Amino acid sequence: MATLIMIRHGQSLYNQKNLFTGWTDIDLSAQGEKEAKKAGERLKQEGIYPDICFTSWLKRAIHTAQLLLREMKWEQIDCLKSWKLNERHYGTWQKQHKEHIKQEVGEKRFIMIRRGYDTPPPPLPSGDARLPQNKRQYQHIDRTLLPRSESLKDTQIRTLNYFYDAIAPQLAKDKTVLVCAHGNSLRALMMALEKLSEKEIVEREIPTGTPILYHFDASLQLIEKKVLTLSETSSF
Amino acid sequence: MATLIMIRHGQSLYNQKNLFTGWTDIDLSAQGEKEAKKAGERLKQEGIYPDICFTSWLKRAIHTAQLLLREMKWEQIDCLKSWKLNERHYGTWQKQHKEHIKQEVGEKRFIMIRRGYDTPPPPLPSGDARLPQNKRQYQHIDRTLLPRSESLKDTQIRTLNYFYDAIAPQLAKDKTVLVCAHGNSLRALMMALEKLSEKEIVEREIPTGTPILYHFDASLQLIEKKVLTLSETSSF
Repeated sequence: MATLIMIRHGQSLYNQKNLFTGWTDIDLSAQGEKEAKKAGERLKQEGIYPDICFTSWLKRAIHTAQLLLREMKWEQIDCLKSWKLNERHYGTWQKQHKEHIKQEVGEKRFIMIRRGYDTPPPPLPSGDARLPQNKRQYQHIDRTLLPRSESLKDTQIRTLNYFYDAIAPQLAKDKTVLVCAHGNSLRALMMALEKLSEKEIVEREIPTGTPILYHFDASLQLIEKKVLTLSETSSF
Repeated sequence: MATLIMIRHGQSLYNQKNLFTGWTDIDLSAQGEKEAKKAGERLKQEGIYPDICFTSWLKRAIHTAQLLLREMKWEQIDCLKSWKLNERHYGTWQKQHKEHIKQEVGEKRFIMIRRGYDTPPPPLPSGDARLPQNKRQYQHIDRTLLPRSESLKDTQIRTLNYFYDAIAPQLAKDKTVLVCAHGNSLRALMMALEKLSEKEIVEREIPTGTPILYHFDASLQLIEKKVLTLSETSSF
């Protein structure tokens, strides 16, 4: 049986300050580091040891995976990384306080952009230092692929491309796969795996540092979902 | 031009205590962590950014690579790991003080085993807790491949197998490849890359935390070797 362990990075310094993060490469808070270690402890308790690890290119996800695996004493697995697992790109909203943006654009538009499926925030203008194409890491990627802002749908398209290119082939080999990523790249994946509608996904929030397990049969059909809370295991 | 960056892990807690480590999975000392960061700082200064990273399965090498890449703000590259890059297996000498072993076996035999090419230390007996096959990580590996002790030659055979299977194909694609491993797995690789004799390799010691660069032409012939010391760059 193939298992996908999905985990959102622990609390970041921007989560703590209530800022939109997106592709801003901000580190975990002390609380976030604790969450990552607890998740590792929890997986170890359950005896669930991943065969391979995938993360985004953002350090809050990379460090969560490293701390989790270190806690499990299971650091020898390969760690593959892709920008396609990055958080949704929040355009000009990045580094801005959520309350300020809400006041600026009004609650209705705020919710439509933040939780809706198909509406991106305003795109970053050319020359903006927050554009990924200005960073060394992203220089070799075709600029037509790199976003200036994204809707959840845009995020979903790149995340699903990567999922079927790189992650699903591991599940097809019956591997236990750890994917450490972000609220929206994981919501995008969750929507596809659980066949959720655009309305249903709006109501889903993914808690930080909590392992969510998906078990698949030999033809990659979802059999079971299980959330490993920190105090107990709940199945739904 | 393809570049191999070879680096021995920073000082470990056993290096500090002068114990034989081998496959014992011991962590870096505070000094070793500093060395790893300095190596990252040095590579950044030189503008040498790896495209991919390889490490052994031992945490002193894994953590060195993580700290080095974190210092470079270059953590998004894939990290592939193999037990074939592990330190030489020191058999019953593992966890023993080097001076005690020297007194026990005599200086001549001590040097022959420690620095010679073809003589392994005494093998671990069945049931010994230090045997890799007793550890979860190594359970899926065919036991005929897993050592009970190794000569440098034994270490070289597995290291070169992995080098040509996994690392050389990256160099053939003109990549800059970081290999973070151990005194003897790197000596074994160095012997092959620099075409050193059994006598010459005896005199080579690889300093901890010091990046050694090998540049190759399109047909993977070695063009240049360069050692990045911490104060200056020396070419020889």
